[in-house]
Amino acid sequence: MKKAIILLSGGIDSATCAAIAKHEGYKLHAMSFLYGQRHSVELKAAKKVAAFFNVAEHKIVRIDLRAFGGSSLTSSLPVPKNRLPADRHGNQKRRKEIPSTYVPARNTIFLSYALAWAEVLGIKDIFIGVNAVDYSGYPDCRPGYIKAFQTMADLATKSGVEGSKIMIRTPLIKLTKAEIIKKGRALGFDYGLTHSCYEPTAEGRACGECDSCLIRKRGFREAGVKDPTRYKKQRIS
Amino acid sequence: MKKAIILLSGGIDSATCAAIAKHEGYKLHAMSFLYGQRHSVELKAAKKVAAFFNVAEHKIVRIDLRAFGGSSLTSSLPVPKNRLPADRHGNQKRRKEIPSTYVPARNTIFLSYALAWAEVLGIKDIFIGVNAVDYSGYPDCRPGYIKAFQTMADLATKSGVEGSKIMIRTPLIKLTKAEIIKKGRALGFDYGLTHSCYEPTAEGRACGECDSCLIRKRGFREAGVKDPTRYKKQRIS
Repeated sequence: MKKAIILLSGGIDSATCAAIAKHEGYKLHAMSFLYGQRHSVELKAAKKVAAFFNVAEHKIVRIDLRAFGGSSLTSSLPVPKNRLPADRHGNQKRRKEIPSTYVPARNTIFLSYALAWAEVLGIKDIFIGVNAVDYSGYPDCRPGYIKAFQTMADLATKSGVEGSKIMIRTPLIKLTKAEIIKKGRALGFDYGLTHSCYEPTAEGRACGECDSCLIRKRGFREAGVKDPTRYKKQRIS
Repeated sequence: MKKAIILLSGGIDSATCAAIAKHEGYKLHAMSFLYGQRHSVELKAAKKVAAFFNVAEHKIVRIDLRAFGGSSLTSSLPVPKNRLPADRHGNQKRRKEIPSTYVPARNTIFLSYALAWAEVLGIKDIFIGVNAVDYSGYPDCRPGYIKAFQTMADLATKSGVEGSKIMIRTPLIKLTKAEIIKKGRALGFDYGLTHSCYEPTAEGRACGECDSCLIRKRGFREAGVKDPTRYKKQRIS
């Protein structure tokens, strides 16, 4: 049975990516990262998603990005709230700046670990749910970045040099969030297992106001799919 | 004062690279990795080298490559001994295969962490002592790999996107080991602080037989510099 590595964050995109890989007939080896993010509730979601897809193994790698700081996801910087998220329809102005939730070199570190693990296991496909349409504007989610990582990986590894390349697979990169959700639903995935919020409550309820919540809400709305997320109760003003 | 990150392994190359960066006027931020390598004595050497160069900070990152296995440096595979090392003079035949001491994606993981740290600190130069002349034949030490990593890094980071690139600096990449040693000596560096052996004794003496020891010995011999290494006593047969 062909095998693939799937990078699982616990969010909508990586879970959908897992559903696609599974549908293509891969046995999945899941990899998640504990990087001192505020929202370790993400990791609980990743474990649920891994169980749903009956992965061969779920490797949880502890990495020390909090020691570096530099992001509102790994330090005490505030997470931006109630900003208009990027909108490809032009109804809302897409923000051009890279937000404070950007974690320096995060996907590069994640993909580097996946590359190492793939080479050790003899796996030739790494699935990552990056998306450059309905996303937070991070540079390391764009097609050009993935292409450059692939070129680098081909030169970095014994597999690449010996002509048996490890491929970075990004099936969601050009889909809207609504298309992603429809795809996952068509493959029978239950998004109630996933978590997107950058700043959930202690009980794991989503804030409903950060970029990630706003993009998620709009995705379900546009897909015409009921949003299964447990949001925190809003104050009535 | 301009600042740079230096990846310090405790070996000859990274120490010489530090000497060059220091000579160019950089204040150094050193980064070393504890990756379950057999030779944690390397790390002791890295600390001595960091102290010699009076670094601003020495970050030691614990990473979990041993959990992956796949290399004789991170698992119980045997380290090759008494093989002829690569020789650019053609006196000995250069081995074409990548040896078992290759650690999958190691430099990619190291550089990814350095990239993250550089971006957080606002540092624009990362020095790495890779060398593609007197080396063990690892793919991630070659100029083409470094160039591809640079391209990827420019696309991965906020700094890169905003036009203030973080540069990967490899001043040793085309030097022989003897040239590297002469360079370091000219800059006043004491190689007695460094360690190269892949399989040292418990007391930290070098085996004198692994690829890394053989390349080191030849380097000192060709440079006409006394080898300060403490080798283990050889059995007389």
